[in-house]
Amino acid sequence: MNEQQQKNGHLVIIGGHEDRKHDMAILSRFVELCGGTDARIVVITAASTVADEMWQVYDNAFGALGVTRHSHLEVTSRQDANSAEFVRQVAEADGIFMTGGDQKRLLALIGGTALDAEMHIALKTRGATIGGTSAGASAMSGHMLAQGRVELHPEKGSVSLGAGLGFLHRVVIDQHFSERQRLSRLLSVVAQNPYLQGIGIDEDTALVIERGVGIEVLGQGAVTMVDGRTMITNVADIKDRDTPELIDVRLHLLPAGSKYQLPTSDIATEKRLPLPLIDILEIVTKRTPLQ
Amino acid sequence: MNEQQQKNGHLVIIGGHEDRKHDMAILSRFVELCGGTDARIVVITAASTVADEMWQVYDNAFGALGVTRHSHLEVTSRQDANSAEFVRQVAEADGIFMTGGDQKRLLALIGGTALDAEMHIALKTRGATIGGTSAGASAMSGHMLAQGRVELHPEKGSVSLGAGLGFLHRVVIDQHFSERQRLSRLLSVVAQNPYLQGIGIDEDTALVIERGVGIEVLGQGAVTMVDGRTMITNVADIKDRDTPELIDVRLHLLPAGSKYQLPTSDIATEKRLPLPLIDILEIVTKRTPLQ
Repeated sequence: MNEQQQKNGHLVIIGGHEDRKHDMAILSRFVELCGGTDARIVVITAASTVADEMWQVYDNAFGALGVTRHSHLEVTSRQDANSAEFVRQVAEADGIFMTGGDQKRLLALIGGTALDAEMHIALKTRGATIGGTSAGASAMSGHMLAQGRVELHPEKGSVSLGAGLGFLHRVVIDQHFSERQRLSRLLSVVAQNPYLQGIGIDEDTALVIERGVGIEVLGQGAVTMVDGRTMITNVADIKDRDTPELIDVRLHLLPAGSKYQLPTSDIATEKRLPLPLIDILEIVTKRTPLQ
Repeated sequence: MNEQQQKNGHLVIIGGHEDRKHDMAILSRFVELCGGTDARIVVITAASTVADEMWQVYDNAFGALGVTRHSHLEVTSRQDANSAEFVRQVAEADGIFMTGGDQKRLLALIGGTALDAEMHIALKTRGATIGGTSAGASAMSGHMLAQGRVELHPEKGSVSLGAGLGFLHRVVIDQHFSERQRLSRLLSVVAQNPYLQGIGIDEDTALVIERGVGIEVLGQGAVTMVDGRTMITNVADIKDRDTPELIDVRLHLLPAGSKYQLPTSDIATEKRLPLPLIDILEIVTKRTPLQ
C-alpha cells in the first residue's frame, strides 16, 4: 500500500433496500472499492435491535460475492465500542459497513468512541471504504437527520438533527427518499439549516464519494440534492408547524449512472461541469482532516 | 363599471377538492371577485361526464354563499359551444367557473369555439373572473398538461401536453399536487419544456391572479413553482423512460397566505421582492391581449 500521509478513501452511501440477492450491484462495488474478495470487511450492526438477523443478511450477501474475510462487529454497548479488540478489528479492516436500523441508536452506541475515531483513521489515513445503508447512510454526515415527520408540505420545527459520525460535513442525508416521499422533510431541514446541503438517496441507490476526487451514483434510482444557500424564506418569522415560504431553492436530480469529477489542473476535463455542481462536489468530496 | 379599454380580470386557479360545504373560503373569494352575491355566474361542467351531478354540487355551494344568479352552462357538444345563446350567457356573466373532470374533454368541447373567444373577452375587456378547479385549473394555460404517469422520478416522455384555453402563457399547471405526489411529473414537463414554468397547486388551495397586478395563495395548502430556465440537463440525449439529469432547477414554495404584487413605480413597495419572484409574477400576471 502506498504510504502517503493522506489517502482519499471512499464513502458508499446507500438509500436502503440495496439488492442483496441478485446482481448486488451496489454491494459488489463496495467490495471492489474495499480491494476485492480478499478484503477484510467488518459489519457494524449497532443501528439495529436485531443485530444477528442483520449480520445474517450481510454474511450471506458478502459470502455470495466471494468475500471470505468479513466479520460481525457486534457492538452492544459503548464499552464494546471503546474496547481494544473492536478497535483493532477496525484498524485492520479494508472496509467498514454500517447496516440499517435507527441512526440515533447507532450514534448512541459508537459516537465519540475509540471505534468512531478508528473509523476516521481508516477512511482518512488508510484509504479504507466506509459503506452505510439507510440509518447507516444518514449517520455519515456531521449533522444527522435524527427524526422527523413526513408531511405533505415542509413544516417549521418538524425535523430534528443530531450529531452524526462526520465523515462529511455541510450536508444532511435522507434515505428511502423517493419511495417514502421525503422531499418535504428535506426541504424542512434546509429551510431552517441553509448551511446544509440536503441529499436524498433513493432505495437500491448509492452515492459513492471518492474524497478529493469525485462522486458517482449507482443503482436503480436517483440522488436528489437541495441547496438552500441562496434561498429567501420567512422561516424565522413563522410559527412552529407552519409552512414556510421558500423562494429560489436549487434542486439537482442525479440519476444512477451519473459520474462527476472535480476539475483538475493537470487533466483536461472533457466535459465542463456546471458551477452549482462543482460547488456541491467541493463540499461532499472535501478531505476533512482527522480531528 | 369603469370603461377603460382593458380590464385586469382575475383567474382563480384551484387545485381540486376546494371546500364546498363549510367555510368555502376559496369559492367565497371567487364570488367576491365576481362582484358579490348579485353577480351573474355561469358554471361550465363540460370537463365532466357527470355534468348534472357537478352542477348540483356548485348550485348548492353558490346558493349557500347567497348567490342567486348562477346558472348551468351545459355544453355537451361543440355546436352548443358555438351557439348564440351560450355565448350570450358568457357575455353577460361576471364570473365563469369550470368544474373538474378531464381537461382533454373540456378542450375538445370548447377549445377554439365562440364560447372560448367570449371567455377571453369577458376576462380581458370586461374584467370578469374566471375560476377553475382540478381539470378546470389545468385547462387555463396555453400549454396544458394533458396526461402523464406519476412515477417516482421524472421520466423523459412520460407526460404529454395539449393546447389549453390560454388565459395565461409560459406556464403549465398541475393540481392535486402534494396529495398525489406530482412533483416528479411536473419536473418531467419542465425538463423537456424549460420554456414553461411548472405550477403545482394543492387541494383546497387556489392561486388567485389579478392580471397586471399580482398573485395570492388561498386555502389550506401551497403552490409549488418549478423553474427550469437556467437548468442544465441531458434530457435531449437520453432515451424515453430514462430519468434525466437535472442540475439547478429553481423551486419556490408559496404557502397559503402568500401575497405578492408587481413593483409599481408610483407606490412605494413596503417589501422588496426577490428577483426570481418578480420574474414569475411578470409571467403569470401578463395582460395578454385578445387574439
